[in-house]
Amino acid sequence: MALLRLTPLCLLVHLCCFVLFVSSVLGAKARHFEWEIEYMYGAPDCLENVVMGINGQFPGPTIKARAGDTVVVHLTNKLHTEGVVIHWHGIRQLGTPWADGTASISQCAINPGETFVYRFKVDKAGTYFYHGHYGMQRSAGLYGLLIVDVEEGKKELFQYDGEFNLLLSDWWHKGVHEQEVDLSANPMRWIGEPQSLLINGRGQYNCSLAAAHNSKGSGLPGCKFRGNEGCAPNILHVMPNKTYRLRVASTTALASLNLAIGNHKMLMVEADGNYLEPFWVNDFDIYSGESYSVVFRTDQNPANNYWISVGVRGRQPRTPQALAILHYQTTTASKLPTLAPPETPLWNDYARSKSFSNKIRALSGSPTPPRINHRRIFLLNTQNRIDGYTKWAINNVSLTLPPTPYLGAIKHGFSNAFDQKSPPDTYLNTYDIMKPPSNPNSTYGNGVYMLKFNTTIDVILQNANALNANVSEIHPWHLHGHDFWVLGYGEGKFSKKDIGKFNLKNPPLRNTAVIFPYGWTALRFVTDNPGVWAFHCHIEPHLHMGMGVVFAEGVHLVGNIPNEALSCGLTGKMLMSKPHN
Amino acid sequence: MALLRLTPLCLLVHLCCFVLFVSSVLGAKARHFEWEIEYMYGAPDCLENVVMGINGQFPGPTIKARAGDTVVVHLTNKLHTEGVVIHWHGIRQLGTPWADGTASISQCAINPGETFVYRFKVDKAGTYFYHGHYGMQRSAGLYGLLIVDVEEGKKELFQYDGEFNLLLSDWWHKGVHEQEVDLSANPMRWIGEPQSLLINGRGQYNCSLAAAHNSKGSGLPGCKFRGNEGCAPNILHVMPNKTYRLRVASTTALASLNLAIGNHKMLMVEADGNYLEPFWVNDFDIYSGESYSVVFRTDQNPANNYWISVGVRGRQPRTPQALAILHYQTTTASKLPTLAPPETPLWNDYARSKSFSNKIRALSGSPTPPRINHRRIFLLNTQNRIDGYTKWAINNVSLTLPPTPYLGAIKHGFSNAFDQKSPPDTYLNTYDIMKPPSNPNSTYGNGVYMLKFNTTIDVILQNANALNANVSEIHPWHLHGHDFWVLGYGEGKFSKKDIGKFNLKNPPLRNTAVIFPYGWTALRFVTDNPGVWAFHCHIEPHLHMGMGVVFAEGVHLVGNIPNEALSCGLTGKMLMSKPHN
Repeated sequence: MALLRLTPLCLLVHLCCFVLFVSSVLGAKARHFEWEIEYMYGAPDCLENVVMGINGQFPGPTIKARAGDTVVVHLTNKLHTEGVVIHWHGIRQLGTPWADGTASISQCAINPGETFVYRFKVDKAGTYFYHGHYGMQRSAGLYGLLIVDVEEGKKELFQYDGEFNLLLSDWWHKGVHEQEVDLSANPMRWIGEPQSLLINGRGQYNCSLAAAHNSKGSGLPGCKFRGNEGCAPNILHVMPNKTYRLRVASTTALASLNLAIGNHKMLMVEADGNYLEPFWVNDFDIYSGESYSVVFRTDQNPANNYWISVGVRGRQPRTPQALAILHYQTTTASKLPTLAPPETPLWNDYARSKSFSNKIRALSGSPTPPRINHRRIFLLNTQNRIDGYTKWAINNVSLTLPPTPYLGAIKHGFSNAFDQKSPPDTYLNTYDIMKPPSNPNSTYGNGVYMLKFNTTIDVILQNANALNANVSEIHPWHLHGHDFWVLGYGEGKFSKKDIGKFNLKNPPLRNTAVIFPYGWTALRFVTDNPGVWAFHCHIEPHLHMGMGVVFAEGVHLVGNIPNEALSCGLTGKMLMSKPHN
Repeated sequence: MALLRLTPLCLLVHLCCFVLFVSSVLGAKARHFEWEIEYMYGAPDCLENVVMGINGQFPGPTIKARAGDTVVVHLTNKLHTEGVVIHWHGIRQLGTPWADGTASISQCAINPGETFVYRFKVDKAGTYFYHGHYGMQRSAGLYGLLIVDVEEGKKELFQYDGEFNLLLSDWWHKGVHEQEVDLSANPMRWIGEPQSLLINGRGQYNCSLAAAHNSKGSGLPGCKFRGNEGCAPNILHVMPNKTYRLRVASTTALASLNLAIGNHKMLMVEADGNYLEPFWVNDFDIYSGESYSVVFRTDQNPANNYWISVGVRGRQPRTPQALAILHYQTTTASKLPTLAPPETPLWNDYARSKSFSNKIRALSGSPTPPRINHRRIFLLNTQNRIDGYTKWAINNVSLTLPPTPYLGAIKHGFSNAFDQKSPPDTYLNTYDIMKPPSNPNSTYGNGVYMLKFNTTIDVILQNANALNANVSEIHPWHLHGHDFWVLGYGEGKFSKKDIGKFNLKNPPLRNTAVIFPYGWTALRFVTDNPGVWAFHCHIEPHLHMGMGVVFAEGVHLVGNIPNEALSCGLTGKMLMSKPHN
């Protein structure tokens, strides 16, 4: 293409060197942060609302570190009555499973007024983020970016002149406490589509930055800004003919997104902290829980500015695009782009989505999966009812988290802390995934998949029809404590013959992978990280409605769990039952 | 009066016997309750809203017991991310200070998913209630009645043919989480007057049951009910020419109230679980935290029904009266009263309010206060600013509760759990209570008034001007763990000469007493109940903004505090620090 003056080759100058660095102790730092979490007023989409802030900021501060560093976050809960935790999404917590920040799984929620110290190593460069993992506090705005650069003295595999970070989220005007009541009600009240999409916590409700381009007509009036509003658009200031890295992460509660930069092609280079075999795109899909790095060259007319557009895919969009501005510093920042914002591809063009997902391959030289798996777990995703309540279930079990976190419960042998019966490894082979469940009743459960340490596990995520006919939704599944290889995506019900089609050559390593409507996704990982790890749909209301499972591996190898992570439930009782004065 | 065919004498047939019973073990029961707390949808004032419910009920279930019984409530927290406690308002918790249900004071909040067992003796007959005491959960609807009858086989001091209970509250459409953010914001955002007053959790927003009597014009249209709505009015079904006991308790977040029954005089007989020297009223004031029993005779035209009206006093009312119907069963319940509802006295007729308060005397034969006090504590109530935040302060200290509850902290000697310096016993004697504070800056604090065990304490609550000129508000102060004698009310600044005017002959025993604008109120109590006890303004937002103090007495005499009450903060750390596997 004429627009493209850049080849992958000239960007990826270091490709020939091996992509995995051994973390060097030299130069590694402990990076300390003191954070206080509280509710505050903000106006994420220009409409005033209560948001969850960290040190008065929404989104929370961006953590910047280098591979090998130790991040130490002293987190103080300044909420009035609520506990809180923070999950470091994409960080595998090697050796520190109690720092994973998942309430009921890795630790007890931090009580109001108390401080918990998260201390963990960021062993691998990449684009990560953090977020609340208790109730629906992520939806309330408890999130921020965690950027890990390559080690001091090492060079990134690709060169760039500047870097921008975009954290994508979606926003509702209704508070999360009420959303929780809605989702738990009988009949369930669906929270609906978000009012706004946010880029770095900024969106514009009921107005459009691109009103001048409204030929297709959002019908929204233009936004008026003095420029200092917290909801004013993000502006990425660039110089012409330079190369920039754009780090993009999605912490949406619901929306699957697509991002494009007007006139600029992007080279996909990183996903979830792992290098990709680079490929060019005009736009890319990003599901909740995913992150990408792209590089692009500012090779367009430097007298213009360009829109960066983010729109909804996978659900009928009722939310306008979020927009940011790529500003060539050769012109004025306030000059609106002359071209209309890039259109988001049709929401239900799943063929296009799948085509993109299938292009994602690990960079040559990346670790490849073991050839053989030891166990294969099939996880059927269904929408169900329990006593009239609408739930999501996996193999007919809807996850309800217990008051005693699993990590401590298993480590200390509390057999009454959760269902001791393992949830099923598969589902009835007569199940018709194309129809609403013939028996929609499922059960609550909180059993654990006990995985043998240092074995290779395949998970086949199987999508199905929801309760209503002709509905099957997208679910991005996120695994804690691990990256997994995405061996493949398929249509319909997984069958043995699909195993032969697995990509064992260059499957991408990810921590999040989507299942498409009526389709399956095959994942492989090695149980080499002692701990208890959530594996769940990253759509916040779906998790709230039970859409997750729990994996445990090598818990006997876990070191001393800090008491602070054990202070609730049965582990708290145990620790306190020692005689005292 | 012609309407009155009843004398105190004929009601109080047992007045001659001594009013205090020694609790008999014979017949005493343990009364067990299993409660689950969660948010749910309700429509307290016909407008749908989220309320805090117990076992799916709002208000919570009424506990009925007899003096000497042990109440055992197994309280399970089914909230998603919030802790919870329940305070048993008016129950002194003799020997069980850890069951007082005040977060940060008597116990750690109960974590989501966990169960705490409240076990306490209701030693004294009376009209009590219970409510949340964490954040603003009381405002969210976490409350209910606790009715203690005289012991089995004993007779009440007055006779009646039937009994009704009215729990009064006020209701906002804005959720409490947002209210908390409002009150904590800089600048503070006042929550305003309640949208509705509720009687037993029922009110009517934007309509009036008494629309037909709108001569003075609320302007509201009539309410339309099929009759089964949760917000349909309370109807008290009575037979003519009988005597009824009406138990009334107020758990309002803000409103001071006045209650009247059309055409019916009432005889005041009980306040806060203590007998009164009976006196007749046409209406009575009731402040948040107070309870009363009145008796009345159904001696009016039995072909009519009569309004029970509850209206706002002490603040300019912006909330319509709450109404209930006294239904003579000789007519139909749906027949609306022919007379207009009783008017609530002028909100700022404080002379009337004071006159009522001054009529309240202990029933002859009640315990009288010790003649001499050992310590006198002056508590100046002021509105202040701290770093621009609007707060309420006592002797210039605004209470911020610590993460380690005081009871455990003091019992186990944690000197770093709270400010070790005692807050001041008095304030500058040059302070001008008639003007806004000349230095409005106060400090945060969480020190404790350490009271010598078995001594007599006088507290002089001193009201003052708030931040704005010519504003002094009503504050009903509630003491945990005790009843106190109300020795007197006075105008202006308390001075030594006022001591001589104390009523030591028949002061009423209460657990809540109001201070009037620019006035003082003198209380006396004996520190005979080992524990740590909150003493605070019962207006929920005022407490939230720091309007309280903490008293500790004889904590060395407190028995073993259950671990479940100690599982947070420093006591939790201590208990967990014992070696374990």
